[in-house]
Amino acid sequence: MDLARSPLALPFPQMPEISGVTLRVARARYKDWDRADLTFAEFSEGTVVAGVFTRSACPSSEVELGRENVKSGHARALVVNAGNSNAFTGYRGREAVEQIMDQVALGIGCAREQVLVSSTGVIGVPLPKDKARAGIESVLGAEGCSWEDAANTIATTDTFAKGATASAMVGGKRVEISAIVKGSGMIAPDMATMLGYIFTDAAITPEFLQQLLSAANRQTFSCITVDSDTSTSDTVLAFATGKAGNAPLASFEDAGADAFAAALHDVCRQLSHLVVRDGEGASKFIEIRISGAVSDESAHRIGMSIANSPLVKTAIAGQDANWGRVVMAVGKAGEPADRDRLSIGFGGTWAARDGQPLADYDETPVAEHLVGTDITIEVDIGLGDGAATVWTCDLTHGYIDINADYRS
Amino acid sequence: MDLARSPLALPFPQMPEISGVTLRVARARYKDWDRADLTFAEFSEGTVVAGVFTRSACPSSEVELGRENVKSGHARALVVNAGNSNAFTGYRGREAVEQIMDQVALGIGCAREQVLVSSTGVIGVPLPKDKARAGIESVLGAEGCSWEDAANTIATTDTFAKGATASAMVGGKRVEISAIVKGSGMIAPDMATMLGYIFTDAAITPEFLQQLLSAANRQTFSCITVDSDTSTSDTVLAFATGKAGNAPLASFEDAGADAFAAALHDVCRQLSHLVVRDGEGASKFIEIRISGAVSDESAHRIGMSIANSPLVKTAIAGQDANWGRVVMAVGKAGEPADRDRLSIGFGGTWAARDGQPLADYDETPVAEHLVGTDITIEVDIGLGDGAATVWTCDLTHGYIDINADYRS
Repeated sequence: MDLARSPLALPFPQMPEISGVTLRVARARYKDWDRADLTFAEFSEGTVVAGVFTRSACPSSEVELGRENVKSGHARALVVNAGNSNAFTGYRGREAVEQIMDQVALGIGCAREQVLVSSTGVIGVPLPKDKARAGIESVLGAEGCSWEDAANTIATTDTFAKGATASAMVGGKRVEISAIVKGSGMIAPDMATMLGYIFTDAAITPEFLQQLLSAANRQTFSCITVDSDTSTSDTVLAFATGKAGNAPLASFEDAGADAFAAALHDVCRQLSHLVVRDGEGASKFIEIRISGAVSDESAHRIGMSIANSPLVKTAIAGQDANWGRVVMAVGKAGEPADRDRLSIGFGGTWAARDGQPLADYDETPVAEHLVGTDITIEVDIGLGDGAATVWTCDLTHGYIDINADYRS
Repeated sequence: MDLARSPLALPFPQMPEISGVTLRVARARYKDWDRADLTFAEFSEGTVVAGVFTRSACPSSEVELGRENVKSGHARALVVNAGNSNAFTGYRGREAVEQIMDQVALGIGCAREQVLVSSTGVIGVPLPKDKARAGIESVLGAEGCSWEDAANTIATTDTFAKGATASAMVGGKRVEISAIVKGSGMIAPDMATMLGYIFTDAAITPEFLQQLLSAANRQTFSCITVDSDTSTSDTVLAFATGKAGNAPLASFEDAGADAFAAALHDVCRQLSHLVVRDGEGASKFIEIRISGAVSDESAHRIGMSIANSPLVKTAIAGQDANWGRVVMAVGKAGEPADRDRLSIGFGGTWAARDGQPLADYDETPVAEHLVGTDITIEVDIGLGDGAATVWTCDLTHGYIDINADYRS
């Protein structure tokens, strides 16, 4: 099935090289296709790593081993297989990952725990060890490639290559961040899933990098949803080579830590939005802003309840300012809410305030807003100071086409 | 929008009259339509009532007042308005409900707390008091009507009338139960929602009726989902007139209590399945059986995670035995699970056992099963004795047609 490029796609950005990072791709032919499907990133000695992974109770071996390996805080290589998720494949799946770790460790001279592996694609088929072995051999001898090549190679059913970049001044040194991501949110056909990789030349301790990545993740990747289905392979890894030469960052006390944290957050936000923009069947990018909840956590849960509501998502697809469906989604969130204090708006225009439709509600500006591709929904719970912003896409016939109208 | 009759529809059953219950309908013309839209049931003195209501934090005034009124344990009348849900209408909505309660109480000579009112349909528009007043006046003087008339009159966007019946021998007396329901699950256009009404001539205390209804609800209405969207108006009420002449049931110690509980449960199961069979766009009725979870509650949550997964529902629509999507849904449920102990089957044939696809998996019987309209998915978590069964429908283009392709 050939998927049309998302109408919400953005062009691939100009991204700086990151000193200490070499990218290469190869054809392992995990599926019957003629494209690069194995991505390899090699890191200079001393590169620091942090990661966040799916909270699925049934993760892939890649996720289990990746979670272990990240604990060491250091990495020398990343391998990403496309076309086979190796999930739900038992001990044979795990053996394939361990084989890749061993082969790369031997090839570049590092500990096997310093090799991170990800796989996405069809599930239930153990990653073929022979193809993996030949692919790794090929990629170790390959020329370097561009960010866009790498972004295309980690993709499976994505309709456009996704990258983001940012920089920060850290103690007088300019630090660069370049990052790529694949996926259509928590969900894509055949369980292809979200993978994100962030590369920086900053010098930073693994503990602080993990702290910053986890914090950014909570407000970016954890705030997006395409259809509420959480994958078994979701992974975001950050690698820091230290080549920028800044005094290593270890805490927010250090000069430039705030600037670096802001840049990392900005890259995570960009990546997460790109995933939503490639959401299956998406025709609208929807930002949902919650205020007045009893806490930020409560606001987040209310926001996700709205973002995951099929009724809200189909209403936006139909350009329908159906605030009643938003009320419904607030009500079902399991969080404190008071119908008679609730206010709901679209694109900056209130449709209902304090639990009632506005007497002088003029739908014209709302209708104009909903014709566009970038939609905002504002919800004021009216109870406290808790706030959150989450992002999703609409639910259209395209989603059914992709997920129901063909056999995977 | 005219909706085609669901391909999963069942014929309306023969249902016995319930002594002590009189049904009437009238045209209040809450919408610009030419059909009966006001249903009235009058109960003989001493009729006992029990109810379960939406857990939405933003319920309608009908739900709030109904919850209060049910506490008295006695009822003399039920009014159901179709075409206007009266939800999110502030004090004006509440005034309309209180006006109906007062008018009926005066008309039949009972306390206002003994009048139960429900409304479904468009939201955000206060129920017009003048139409309600004229409708009640008309219905109080109307002839009696049939169960099917009443079932059609409480409906909004339902595509078929829904009723269920059962009987039980209680202490030598035959007790009848007749019941009607409307809705397409937790969700329907314009926030039309699920309403269920159960009528019996059994003599029973209000406390025991509430206990039995709550228990049946947990295993029937609380185990169905069309699309995970919980409405602001969901209501199930049970009325017992006591006219069967059995010795009043007050606990499971009483003769016939088990038989009556089983009959009530059976009626609730039938009604809940009818709602799923009218799920928006549904082409398959799906039963999901969970076993081997750490508890029944855990099994229920895993079952609902599968039943609410758009990926699982589109796979079934596509007749695709995509057990990988079932693994994903188990993994995201937030409940204990072990990937390597998980087994998944369709229509009684295992596709995967203990975390791996079966080596000798023959897809032929599974493919034949998935062509039908009544589908079962079996999931063994492999950890304990917890079990649950839940029901849902598939997710098709019909769902998008109904919810996105028109302005409400």
